[in-house]
Amino acid sequence: MKLGMIGLGKMGANMAQRLLLGGHQVTGFDPNADARKALEQHGAASAGSLQALVDALPAPRVLWLMVPSGKITDDTVNALLPLLAKGDTVIDGGNSNYQDTLRRAALYAEHSLGYVDCGTSGGVWGLKEGYSMMVGGDAETVEPLRPIFETLAPGKDQGWGHVGPVGSGHFTKMVHNGIEYGLMQAYAEGFSILKHKQEFKLDLHQIGEIWRYGSVVRSWLLDLTTDALAKNPDMDGVAPYVVDSGEGRWTVAAALELDVPAPIITAALIERLRSRDSDSFADKLLSSMRNEFGGHAIKKE
Amino acid sequence: MKLGMIGLGKMGANMAQRLLLGGHQVTGFDPNADARKALEQHGAASAGSLQALVDALPAPRVLWLMVPSGKITDDTVNALLPLLAKGDTVIDGGNSNYQDTLRRAALYAEHSLGYVDCGTSGGVWGLKEGYSMMVGGDAETVEPLRPIFETLAPGKDQGWGHVGPVGSGHFTKMVHNGIEYGLMQAYAEGFSILKHKQEFKLDLHQIGEIWRYGSVVRSWLLDLTTDALAKNPDMDGVAPYVVDSGEGRWTVAAALELDVPAPIITAALIERLRSRDSDSFADKLLSSMRNEFGGHAIKKE
Repeated sequence: MKLGMIGLGKMGANMAQRLLLGGHQVTGFDPNADARKALEQHGAASAGSLQALVDALPAPRVLWLMVPSGKITDDTVNALLPLLAKGDTVIDGGNSNYQDTLRRAALYAEHSLGYVDCGTSGGVWGLKEGYSMMVGGDAETVEPLRPIFETLAPGKDQGWGHVGPVGSGHFTKMVHNGIEYGLMQAYAEGFSILKHKQEFKLDLHQIGEIWRYGSVVRSWLLDLTTDALAKNPDMDGVAPYVVDSGEGRWTVAAALELDVPAPIITAALIERLRSRDSDSFADKLLSSMRNEFGGHAIKKE
Repeated sequence: MKLGMIGLGKMGANMAQRLLLGGHQVTGFDPNADARKALEQHGAASAGSLQALVDALPAPRVLWLMVPSGKITDDTVNALLPLLAKGDTVIDGGNSNYQDTLRRAALYAEHSLGYVDCGTSGGVWGLKEGYSMMVGGDAETVEPLRPIFETLAPGKDQGWGHVGPVGSGHFTKMVHNGIEYGLMQAYAEGFSILKHKQEFKLDLHQIGEIWRYGSVVRSWLLDLTTDALAKNPDMDGVAPYVVDSGEGRWTVAAALELDVPAPIITAALIERLRSRDSDSFADKLLSSMRNEFGGHAIKKE
């Protein structure tokens, strides 16, 4: 198929490459000229503006959006709106909040434009291994896009699916990332316990390797964790500071809205906040309370 | 090698079978005559008592213990003690608490008997796929046992390792199970959120299948979860009641003893206790407190 790829960062550029390798014709757009040039070297065409991109594609147009969620996605969706014609489809492959997706899809529907959300997992490994994709949208909009998903996925009928109406793809991907927070935290805590049992002098990389084969906790995340432990067993130079990019807190908010208890996913999110709270006001206050009622010494800075 | 297998339940019987297939000579003991007979049909010898088992094996003897942790392991270890001779080795392949293992190993060392702990993961799938094994003990006791581990493991040098001194194998397996609690709970909460988002009518089995290929959350536990969702998508007939068999609470106790915060693993354990507390006194008291201070209605039984 012919399609436009908007956003040629590490995700968009890799997806464009995988599409090219699969025989699709890709025209790429990114405000960064170097990113456009890099993609051209893989056999893609490129366009220097959204208008040029839209002009370069045959109707009905298919545009894949792979840009940061939030304002940049909103700006791009809004900028495209007047450039597109009835029957064109935009696929948001980024990590948008599903509520934003519902709002944008409603706007596009008013103009008889197709809007599809695709929750995309796989990170930088997707180029080689394929992407896991959760697709939301009307059947008549999604079905013609099937060749794209079949190429991007790990297998033609593997690792992707049309999960429901528009918004459901990003909702499912959001929950996927919430689960990911919990899985990561479980491994991190377990290895930390092993690390602190000093009299056993455990080799964490060795244990990760053992668990990779035949154990109940084997997983792709364990493969990556074991790899990290091989390269840097004591995590030298790595600050104990964990960033979050939104999906975890959206998952917790969705769970609360639905009255679903999700203590692990919630605690995994809170641990990330905790990792960034090195000057904790709450801890200072707790130390002061112990001093007030029990005369316990306050550790000074 | 020649060895005795004590305990022919689903784990012990499968491990004996895998050893037989690997060319080892196994003599099995179990108080249950049917279990002995079943193993004989796979080509093993059997013995009707611990004394008969010990008599049937050439010195130095190797005995693999695959019995429930706690009292039964203690009883068996104590019953074997007067029957064994210097140089004989007992391997505890069950889920013993590592502190019990340290105590038993010290007793055996007083009698110049070898004691090795092997944390074993893989469940009922181990017969076919091999067991993941974390082995603790002195090098001179563990090294002669190598052919046994190489056969039981998924590959000769895969999925098993000598991780440290006696006790460290069971300690590592305990933490493995703590991680397992966290992983299981993360998936369970995520699928529950998806289930409750009713307007999207999500097919949980389909989503599990998508995630199995190319996604960041792919794992063996996800494979099994997806399989369960295929067979019984609404979990019909399954009580919301989750048993624990000890390793989770030992992991939490070890984390506390080591001053290691392990909130996810702890919360996953507490969720299991919660699942069994259907007549929660705390909940009744909370409901009563709300009535006391705010006049909020109490939901009656």
